[in-house]
Amino acid sequence: MSSEVVSRGLENVIIKTTKLTYIDGNNGILRYGGYAIEDLVEKASYEEVIHLFLYGDLPNKKQLEYVRQKLFSSFEVPDQAISVIYSLPRDSDPMAMMEAAFAVLASIYNPNWDKKTDKDRALEMIAKTATITANVYRAKEGLKPKIPQPAGSYAESFLTAVFDKKPTEEEIKAMDAALVLYADHEVPASTTAALVVSSTLSDIYSSIVAALAALKGPLHGGAAEAAFKQYVEIGSVDKVDNWFEEKIVKGKNRLMGFGHRVYKTYDPRAKIFKKFAKSFADKDEKVKKYYDIAERLEELGIKEFGSKGIYPNTDYYSGIVYYALGFPMYMYTPLFALSRVLGWSAHVIEYVEEQHRLIRPRALYTGPEKREFKPIEQR
Amino acid sequence: MSSEVVSRGLENVIIKTTKLTYIDGNNGILRYGGYAIEDLVEKASYEEVIHLFLYGDLPNKKQLEYVRQKLFSSFEVPDQAISVIYSLPRDSDPMAMMEAAFAVLASIYNPNWDKKTDKDRALEMIAKTATITANVYRAKEGLKPKIPQPAGSYAESFLTAVFDKKPTEEEIKAMDAALVLYADHEVPASTTAALVVSSTLSDIYSSIVAALAALKGPLHGGAAEAAFKQYVEIGSVDKVDNWFEEKIVKGKNRLMGFGHRVYKTYDPRAKIFKKFAKSFADKDEKVKKYYDIAERLEELGIKEFGSKGIYPNTDYYSGIVYYALGFPMYMYTPLFALSRVLGWSAHVIEYVEEQHRLIRPRALYTGPEKREFKPIEQR
Repeated sequence: MSSEVVSRGLENVIIKTTKLTYIDGNNGILRYGGYAIEDLVEKASYEEVIHLFLYGDLPNKKQLEYVRQKLFSSFEVPDQAISVIYSLPRDSDPMAMMEAAFAVLASIYNPNWDKKTDKDRALEMIAKTATITANVYRAKEGLKPKIPQPAGSYAESFLTAVFDKKPTEEEIKAMDAALVLYADHEVPASTTAALVVSSTLSDIYSSIVAALAALKGPLHGGAAEAAFKQYVEIGSVDKVDNWFEEKIVKGKNRLMGFGHRVYKTYDPRAKIFKKFAKSFADKDEKVKKYYDIAERLEELGIKEFGSKGIYPNTDYYSGIVYYALGFPMYMYTPLFALSRVLGWSAHVIEYVEEQHRLIRPRALYTGPEKREFKPIEQR
Repeated sequence: MSSEVVSRGLENVIIKTTKLTYIDGNNGILRYGGYAIEDLVEKASYEEVIHLFLYGDLPNKKQLEYVRQKLFSSFEVPDQAISVIYSLPRDSDPMAMMEAAFAVLASIYNPNWDKKTDKDRALEMIAKTATITANVYRAKEGLKPKIPQPAGSYAESFLTAVFDKKPTEEEIKAMDAALVLYADHEVPASTTAALVVSSTLSDIYSSIVAALAALKGPLHGGAAEAAFKQYVEIGSVDKVDNWFEEKIVKGKNRLMGFGHRVYKTYDPRAKIFKKFAKSFADKDEKVKKYYDIAERLEELGIKEFGSKGIYPNTDYYSGIVYYALGFPMYMYTPLFALSRVLGWSAHVIEYVEEQHRLIRPRALYTGPEKREFKPIEQR
């Protein structure tokens, strides 16, 4: 080994190059393929962002039509993927349910890596993720399975399948924005897990199984749910100051939805989620209750932690948007996965096609020196 | 970022410390917890090695009894784990089947991390791996499911469930040796995938799901099968020299079962597998055919590649042992997993309990500079 220093958490270790996502954590800048996240959310659809990630640029009309056609014709999944979800207890962890469904897809499709078809496989998989995610919700709610159908957009197809009713334009726009905002964020643990798996030339579905397994962890995908749980626990805006003093300042508990390994300032995604949350809050008292709590908590949090570079991250307001859309808290992490499957796919394709190498780090041995074997009678 | 150098394949990056496995790749030395691999295979059982990995030392009689009792009482799995395997097409990739079954276990058990219970959870999971592995074989062969039952050893319980008949003492010893030999090998891709997942505090079953997904890749777990396929392709010992000249020397194809990222000399595990393979070959003409091919091929391989540090690795002879035990080739990677689940468990427990940190490397952005958004009509 060239060095005997442990790279704890692989912090500052560069695992790959990427043309996908650029983050400037000190200045709160996030770009996909060179385009500002703010522009993409406001002016582009998730389908356009899918094209940007997989093909390197925003699509023209013909290219967009290809993406839409491919997505809309790929929502079907094999029966076994649905039946494994429905075979599990309704209180199962929804991310583990997604792992199981994706493992079934890996078994049945098991695609080879091939530059000529990888992107089509990714488009199909992204479509099927909508189906799996919708049916995790439906199974847990005791509703019959439902396959998304072609509609005005991917977001609309998904929401319609989930709730079995046509969403409003505002709901579709918010869902689309959430899909864009969570689409990629360079190489967090879930993406790293997918990369490690793809580096063995295991199939793309198995790579996503590993990413789902990582996202399941409370230190990764669980943050939006944990942030929203705080608002529920606080209960009303007049209780925020006292709760903050007791739980966070005195109790030294972590303020959920605050702080990020990469951002040392306000997460640009949080600003956008906040805008959508406010817009729902302005029209709905139930949403307003949580929005007001979150907003006051944010003020206190920034006053306390801002000087240390700890600010609201993307998960701080996203839960309020999901709540406004009608999702229960347990779906916040699956919704993260639904969106991030794009980033996972694009990163593993970029890795396997352009810079493939088997991932094999080392461990530093700190155990006993050579020991003499003793038979069990002498131990 | 402190450095802008990409650590390709994370080569020489140290991801953790470990007291489990020591490898000296230049001198062909492998030790578990300070004990030479040769001693452990010859003098200890897999159950003793399980204790060594999880508790830091070889067990006394009482400790061994605890491990055995825990294993033997944990073979049962929920019906859904078996039924998902049987729901899949018989020609499914067996590793993807294992991923699906483990994801089901993650859904149903979803254990928390807890120093007081982690090792018990690992023992239970190791037992259930025997059940899953046996039933992947049985489903693919069109046989009825079978749950392993307590017997003289874990290896015996497993073999009896797989083939539905009592194995010979020699078969049990060889199975036990294979379990010990593949039990751990520091942090290859599968172990790394498990570590990344566990670093998010996702559950231990989900960590193993990711490890299985990585082991599925032909660059990782597939080597024993690929090596054996060569012997089948060659067909008889008199054809080895010609095949080697055509395929390897002139054809520049890779000699499977040769070479290793860490070992630059003869893999100590390969020597032991070779001994077991020879012992079966001496008694069985069918085994001898493949053994003779492998042995001659080894001579040619070492002559050609030995000076470059490319020697037989553990997968070179293991397939012949598995063949002698009656396993079809598609089971070689699942058998690797059956054994390695010990190393995966021990590494993630070591990581989470003693040196936990969320794994979050970085990517180096090489994409376009900031671009102005253009509406679709102008693209």
